[in-house]
Amino acid sequence: MVKKSLFDAWAHLLNLSKLKKGETVAILVGDITHPEHLAAVKSVLTMQGHVYYVMELGEAPSMGLAGDSTAAYAPTALASNPVAIDALTKSSFIVDLMGMYRGGEQKQILDAGSRILLVKEGPEIFIRMIPQQEDKARVIEAVELIKKSQVMQVTSEAGTDLVASFGKYDYLAQYGFSDEPGHWDHSPSAFAAAWPTEESVQGRVVLNAGDVILPFKYYLQTPINLDIKDGYITSITGGFDAKYLREYMASFNDPEAYAVSHLGWGLHDRAHWTGLGMYDKRQTNGMESRSFAGCFMFSTGPNIEGGGTRETECHLDIPMLDCTVKMDDVLVVEKGQLVKR
Amino acid sequence: MVKKSLFDAWAHLLNLSKLKKGETVAILVGDITHPEHLAAVKSVLTMQGHVYYVMELGEAPSMGLAGDSTAAYAPTALASNPVAIDALTKSSFIVDLMGMYRGGEQKQILDAGSRILLVKEGPEIFIRMIPQQEDKARVIEAVELIKKSQVMQVTSEAGTDLVASFGKYDYLAQYGFSDEPGHWDHSPSAFAAAWPTEESVQGRVVLNAGDVILPFKYYLQTPINLDIKDGYITSITGGFDAKYLREYMASFNDPEAYAVSHLGWGLHDRAHWTGLGMYDKRQTNGMESRSFAGCFMFSTGPNIEGGGTRETECHLDIPMLDCTVKMDDVLVVEKGQLVKR
Amino acid sequence: MVKKSLFDAWAHLLNLSKLKKGETVAILVGDITHPEHLAAVKSVLTMQGHVYYVMELGEAPSMGLAGDSTAAYAPTALASNPVAIDALTKSSFIVDLMGMYRGGEQKQILDAGSRILLVKEGPEIFIRMIPQQEDKARVIEAVELIKKSQVMQVTSEAGTDLVASFGKYDYLAQYGFSDEPGHWDHSPSAFAAAWPTEESVQGRVVLNAGDVILPFKYYLQTPINLDIKDGYITSITGGFDAKYLREYMASFNDPEAYAVSHLGWGLHDRAHWTGLGMYDKRQTNGMESRSFAGCFMFSTGPNIEGGGTRETECHLDIPMLDCTVKMDDVLVVEKGQLVKR
Amino acid sequence: MVKKSLFDAWAHLLNLSKLKKGETVAILVGDITHPEHLAAVKSVLTMQGHVYYVMELGEAPSMGLAGDSTAAYAPTALASNPVAIDALTKSSFIVDLMGMYRGGEQKQILDAGSRILLVKEGPEIFIRMIPQQEDKARVIEAVELIKKSQVMQVTSEAGTDLVASFGKYDYLAQYGFSDEPGHWDHSPSAFAAAWPTEESVQGRVVLNAGDVILPFKYYLQTPINLDIKDGYITSITGGFDAKYLREYMASFNDPEAYAVSHLGWGLHDRAHWTGLGMYDKRQTNGMESRSFAGCFMFSTGPNIEGGGTRETECHLDIPMLDCTVKMDDVLVVEKGQLVKR
Amino acid sequence: MVKKSLFDAWAHLLNLSKLKKGETVAILVGDITHPEHLAAVKSVLTMQGHVYYVMELGEAPSMGLAGDSTAAYAPTALASNPVAIDALTKSSFIVDLMGMYRGGEQKQILDAGSRILLVKEGPEIFIRMIPQQEDKARVIEAVELIKKSQVMQVTSEAGTDLVASFGKYDYLAQYGFSDEPGHWDHSPSAFAAAWPTEESVQGRVVLNAGDVILPFKYYLQTPINLDIKDGYITSITGGFDAKYLREYMASFNDPEAYAVSHLGWGLHDRAHWTGLGMYDKRQTNGMESRSFAGCFMFSTGPNIEGGGTRETECHLDIPMLDCTVKMDDVLVVEKGQLVKR
Amino acid sequence: MVKKSLFDAWAHLLNLSKLKKGETVAILVGDITHPEHLAAVKSVLTMQGHVYYVMELGEAPSMGLAGDSTAAYAPTALASNPVAIDALTKSSFIVDLMGMYRGGEQKQILDAGSRILLVKEGPEIFIRMIPQQEDKARVIEAVELIKKSQVMQVTSEAGTDLVASFGKYDYLAQYGFSDEPGHWDHSPSAFAAAWPTEESVQGRVVLNAGDVILPFKYYLQTPINLDIKDGYITSITGGFDAKYLREYMASFNDPEAYAVSHLGWGLHDRAHWTGLGMYDKRQTNGMESRSFAGCFMFSTGPNIEGGGTRETECHLDIPMLDCTVKMDDVLVVEKGQLVKR
Repeated sequence: MVKKSLFDAWAHLLNLSKLKKGETVAILVGDITHPEHLAAVKSVLTMQGHVYYVMELGEAPSMGLAGDSTAAYAPTALASNPVAIDALTKSSFIVDLMGMYRGGEQKQILDAGSRILLVKEGPEIFIRMIPQQEDKARVIEAVELIKKSQVMQVTSEAGTDLVASFGKYDYLAQYGFSDEPGHWDHSPSAFAAAWPTEESVQGRVVLNAGDVILPFKYYLQTPINLDIKDGYITSITGGFDAKYLREYMASFNDPEAYAVSHLGWGLHDRAHWTGLGMYDKRQTNGMESRSFAGCFMFSTGPNIEGGGTRETECHLDIPMLDCTVKMDDVLVVEKGQLVKR
Repeated sequence: MVKKSLFDAWAHLLNLSKLKKGETVAILVGDITHPEHLAAVKSVLTMQGHVYYVMELGEAPSMGLAGDSTAAYAPTALASNPVAIDALTKSSFIVDLMGMYRGGEQKQILDAGSRILLVKEGPEIFIRMIPQQEDKARVIEAVELIKKSQVMQVTSEAGTDLVASFGKYDYLAQYGFSDEPGHWDHSPSAFAAAWPTEESVQGRVVLNAGDVILPFKYYLQTPINLDIKDGYITSITGGFDAKYLREYMASFNDPEAYAVSHLGWGLHDRAHWTGLGMYDKRQTNGMESRSFAGCFMFSTGPNIEGGGTRETECHLDIPMLDCTVKMDDVLVVEKGQLVKR
Repeated sequence: MVKKSLFDAWAHLLNLSKLKKGETVAILVGDITHPEHLAAVKSVLTMQGHVYYVMELGEAPSMGLAGDSTAAYAPTALASNPVAIDALTKSSFIVDLMGMYRGGEQKQILDAGSRILLVKEGPEIFIRMIPQQEDKARVIEAVELIKKSQVMQVTSEAGTDLVASFGKYDYLAQYGFSDEPGHWDHSPSAFAAAWPTEESVQGRVVLNAGDVILPFKYYLQTPINLDIKDGYITSITGGFDAKYLREYMASFNDPEAYAVSHLGWGLHDRAHWTGLGMYDKRQTNGMESRSFAGCFMFSTGPNIEGGGTRETECHLDIPMLDCTVKMDDVLVVEKGQLVKR
Repeated sequence: MVKKSLFDAWAHLLNLSKLKKGETVAILVGDITHPEHLAAVKSVLTMQGHVYYVMELGEAPSMGLAGDSTAAYAPTALASNPVAIDALTKSSFIVDLMGMYRGGEQKQILDAGSRILLVKEGPEIFIRMIPQQEDKARVIEAVELIKKSQVMQVTSEAGTDLVASFGKYDYLAQYGFSDEPGHWDHSPSAFAAAWPTEESVQGRVVLNAGDVILPFKYYLQTPINLDIKDGYITSITGGFDAKYLREYMASFNDPEAYAVSHLGWGLHDRAHWTGLGMYDKRQTNGMESRSFAGCFMFSTGPNIEGGGTRETECHLDIPMLDCTVKMDDVLVVEKGQLVKR
Repeated sequence: MVKKSLFDAWAHLLNLSKLKKGETVAILVGDITHPEHLAAVKSVLTMQGHVYYVMELGEAPSMGLAGDSTAAYAPTALASNPVAIDALTKSSFIVDLMGMYRGGEQKQILDAGSRILLVKEGPEIFIRMIPQQEDKARVIEAVELIKKSQVMQVTSEAGTDLVASFGKYDYLAQYGFSDEPGHWDHSPSAFAAAWPTEESVQGRVVLNAGDVILPFKYYLQTPINLDIKDGYITSITGGFDAKYLREYMASFNDPEAYAVSHLGWGLHDRAHWTGLGMYDKRQTNGMESRSFAGCFMFSTGPNIEGGGTRETECHLDIPMLDCTVKMDDVLVVEKGQLVKR
Repeated sequence: MVKKSLFDAWAHLLNLSKLKKGETVAILVGDITHPEHLAAVKSVLTMQGHVYYVMELGEAPSMGLAGDSTAAYAPTALASNPVAIDALTKSSFIVDLMGMYRGGEQKQILDAGSRILLVKEGPEIFIRMIPQQEDKARVIEAVELIKKSQVMQVTSEAGTDLVASFGKYDYLAQYGFSDEPGHWDHSPSAFAAAWPTEESVQGRVVLNAGDVILPFKYYLQTPINLDIKDGYITSITGGFDAKYLREYMASFNDPEAYAVSHLGWGLHDRAHWTGLGMYDKRQTNGMESRSFAGCFMFSTGPNIEGGGTRETECHLDIPMLDCTVKMDDVLVVEKGQLVKR
């Protein structure tokens, strides 16, 4: 039996996504699909009379790490299935409970006008963070600011001092629902980001106790110093946490693992930094950490999704506390707090 | 865990169906899908490296009777799902574990060249009756005979005396695998049939103790006399069994229910007339009854699948014992025994 | 996931039962509870904001026969659980998916004003036969006729000739929903009946091929002659079917097994006599057989539920075809057809 | 959770079987194992502190028919597993929930002194027919009578007239528990039988309406005449039922299928002839039919289990009503009723 | 199948709770119910012949956090279900596997004399820590000491220096079973505590590495300084752990979150401080941490359960190592070790 | 359905283990058996035509801790089951998915020539670390080196300075498959170790941040100083981590808990030190930590498995980073890196 709270959350989400009669919905399922999400979304679609199909593909060519689809950034069985890709391009709305590879055929499907909504987080956090219409305005406003700024500057008392410029690649407006043709979103979340021009990223990022590296899903206990030069991390120093990060990245044996990926900040005002600490790793995908208002999200690895050419399996999202973010002269986050305007 | 016997049966079946690397396989699933079949076919496809997808649709607009998809001949949710139909037309091979409506979009999918293989029977009978290459030759030979004959005449000691002519509508070569573009088949089975020219069907059919009416799935205990005029059953007389049949057909409130549908005979030499008696209704779909060598299969209801215009939810398949079937002057079944040649 | 068709059926049923906000619903579950019914009714109650509780009791003191709660008419664990009984008397509406003993504490619960709705039939038949408001009018009209008549006379071409009088005991208006305080009903069904004055029942009942004895759940193939004297069956003669019935009743070793219980007729115009033949025994509780319009339902065993003192585990419901039922001079069923008025 | 009624039944059964501390119990499981039996027997053994192991073997070389292990009499995977056979020979007590092949390694295991108790019937009938100590006395007395008699003569009003002699092969004392080294039993049941000297079986067996052929699991509706000569059935005549039996036996293509196997009579006074009629085929193994007091059980096929050389997959148990059985001059069953002494 | 070790633990627990024949047991179940506990307690009750019912309520109005019912202290669906409340007040013994809201209707149920036993911990720890009769004596003796003392003083080398007085509110004797009318207990556990007079709590609590904050379920790595004034925490300072605690409490937006709740010490001599470190969060409810002998348990939030008026969803239990606890002049815990007397 | 990647891994593993037709395989299952491993190994054995049996024993006399069979080193139900032990000694190959007690009957089984392969790790890590033929060579070479050396010396910058001598007890060549009669292995893993002569172990072990204590399954954050004298740990000092270790070991109340067990180093070049950090405790058994190339594995507790007499439930495996290991004058690991030769 589908819980009312989950049914209502999905009904709200599909309504925000402007799902209309006559549209065909695809529900893509796979190993990581939460059965309660699948039952709930089918239930809402059925009760509301929408046309849908559930699609499951074969075994992925490579294996995920720790059951976390964010840990390895690699193609799925969809890549080699032209009939399935074609069906998805013809579907108005795709509920992605499988986790498409963002660097591959997803672009073709979005270009065809399909709306995609990815959901990997479990029901509890999903319900608690369910998107609201106003989240979009906040995210779009932030993305617009990135678009019109020349330089992003990030500083922190811990020692972070980073600059980056945008414009060469895409912008990432993630507000938790997908209401426009060709829009991809990941629910629940709310943050604004963009892929910087590679060489523009310079400086230093100092991670501090309490910062989170995803998919590691724990709070750092000790600082990590990252030197950034020409868009690449050139050194990782510090104590145990630094050693762990260094060894993890080295295990991919891939120079592109050290590239800087998208940069941005969290805008979700019902998400809590403390949320992650209440769950085991297997229970969460980390969307609350990625989204809490005022985090600066530094990330590493591929920029192929943003239109670049860097492709690597190693992708880290690193939401940071207590940073100050300026877009040109506009202060957007001050010591970890969103600047209200 | 998939049983070896079932794995081997599916591997054999897909091999007979000439499944090749590079083809995309669709597995259509629904309420009646046997989970062991689904696991087995996925397992074979995965082990052999084929590309496939599993597709499940929403709730059907009308409800089946007694969990038997053969009892009601009505559209499924596929009819209103153009994206799903389109995907199926692009799939080389379709394992239909859902049971498409044979009077609807199935034709469009076949016309596109997809091979369809329907499986509704449970694993035990499926394995026991698994098709062999030589079944096809026997079936094709029989269908060729129907095609070149002017008149089918069926008689029996019980009183059956029926004539029918073919040519206006399609022929049904059912041999249990689907090895040619646009071929639909239903596994396991082996029989030859055709939809007669409506008005050509004249005479009398006398069902006898031991004959089976599907989807009733029991052996008649008493004779039933059916008068046939201009392609329609005009009277149903006899004892309890006749009364049951009469009331059942009347419950559809549909004159087309009384039409004669396809006529033909069984050619499967590993199927047994006695098989049905070993199972509960829910355990079998009746494919063994439809297929045993030497049965004459009389059927009623729609001919839309064969190219006609008669459409009705009431469809009966009635495999009969001890009949003699002649195509023009060629004796094909004599007193319930296939004539060897 | 609850199917829409089942969700809608339960929503309709609870609406017919005039379930209102502020009422507390008890859902009583046990061994025979169909999980889809439980999920559906919980789902409807939750979505509509009703207050409910699910209650499960311990193991019953005696064991059912063939998993059919109608086969043995015996107390459950409820009888010895005063707290549970008390809670049920305080519940406005009881969805009985367990099957209370009708001869026991059920009366106390009904007397307290609780509405009880028993559901034992599986989802498919339940949906197909879902009650309608007009069923009640038809049933109530028939019960009123019984109440004001002196004598019921039942005859048939097969030889039935039975008379009975009512008035000493209760009447049974069963229309498939429970919309009045203290009303017990069993869904899906529609029939009118009453417990006759014991000694008034005299004559002969001749069961014929096609009649059904519940809980046997098969169509008789041969006639059975029942002599009835002073409210008791005094002889059972005929062929195999008679022998089976005779031995079955004898196995209870109880003279009260031979008593005549309630008498009445079916009024459900979407139920089919042929329905039973499509299912295995385990798949159905026989409500379609009990209810089809125009059946005469003869039954045997206890009348304690109707206010009498006869108590026995052996209770048979025997819906008969082709009878003519007259209440005084009013013809209500003629040769198995309801007389329209 | 194991039901108390089932727990108690197993505890009683193991107690009757004189299971003692220090004995090792083997529980053999397979496709037909009822999960409630497995849980119950493990629960009893654990609660009572017995040492046991559960053993499951690989896929059997041949497939059962209709999920009924009595339908095909063929080796299992045990035959090719010497380590498993050896472990069983060393186990004091074997709860066989898999169904060993009685013609094979079972003898070796029994010869080693292991007690074997086979259980294939479902929990409901198992509980209802649970053995009692006095069943053994009754069965042993009957077997002793067979041992000391020269000729068995069976007659019936329907026309049965059969003679047979014993002494060459084994006797079958089946009382539902296994309390002696090397004793095999099948619970629940109570009957006495023996494998006749092949050529001694002469005459005629006339099956009548109400008789049961296992594994067919239905009541015959029409008589079947079996001529028996020199221990073989030489003709099978009659109506539909005869035709069904004839075709079924013919489908094995094996002359030994027509041999007469063990002969005996039922001695279980809590079993009912009517029991079978309350269940679907899948729900029962037919032990109630085989055991009801006063049935004459005619059976066909192999005598290898009894020490003979006839081996065939086709084995039928045919409990008959209304027969009169005499051992020399001692009347043991008269018109289907056990003669009390 | 219920494990013997778990069956025995429950049997022991119900025996300690003086469950007697004739008493009615309610088993309250919900989302957090461990299925093995439910099966075990039903099994014990059934085997011992007790009368019971299982009751499940609808969806709770608010959602738990991280699947831990201790994380949010809020009403359940019971609050709005008067029939269910009434049934519980009439039940002699309640096995609460759902987790009633301790601030609500639980008082009414206890006042009616029902014994309540809450179990949220999983089977493994439950079995390892199963209560013993002597636990009660130890706990009662400690509670008596609290009752007769004027002042509790708690100190530690880490800097804790706290005073508190009792008498205005209730005392909490938690020994793991419920053997007296109106007694509530939570199994497994053993500790003594009381809700202090609000304003009497003054001083400083310094949490240290190794201390545990529940429901966080991890060992602190760094000290946290808590200033306490007039019964409220007025500042939380320190490193990462302090920041996490500060942000977590702030997320409730509720001044009462900072109130001091019950104070006491652990008395369970089979519980280990190290236990928590062996489990994932989802695997444990933290009862071992709350109970190990010699811990000082500081807690925050509501005192409504103790008879006060402070009500807040934020409730923390904080078992601390190495404290010294004095009740007036009596040393009860010295540097984390229970003082033996 | 068994995943192809897991099926292939098991097929590879059994092939490395030289499983041959005619050998009998035992699959030992228990509480910790991963259902996917069981299905996969049965599937491979069935597809390849091997003879096997699955054996499950009763409840173990003592309970595991935290669901981790490595946490407590204690006998299972096998110890008291001579029939099961005997069957295992007769089985050529044993897939141990239950976890036999290594100090008990396992020796008898190995001495009989059975090959044992223990698998406790979940499928994901199992697949990722699946053994290769070359792992054996590397492990054997390392074990040979231990055998011919007089002294092992281990040092680290953190302060470790330990010496030990071998020769009195067994050597442990663990390479992840079992290809020789009497060989026990644990898959996936690759390391070489030996049980030192008790009194020869002298010096100091300093654990450092990043080292792992199994079964704790977390990275140490602070150093722990262990003084070792005459083969026993005589003091454990440091911060929180030291306190935790000290209390944990003390909870066993057993002087032998402090003994030094086997010493050795990891040789698996596809295992990562960082792997452990990606999983929850319940998800992994820690085989990746035990095996990564260049770790020095210090372990404590029993040496009975190696032929000694120390027996204790407390067994810790402690893979350490950054150590330098010398066997006499041969440098085998230098600052945590395997010395290539």
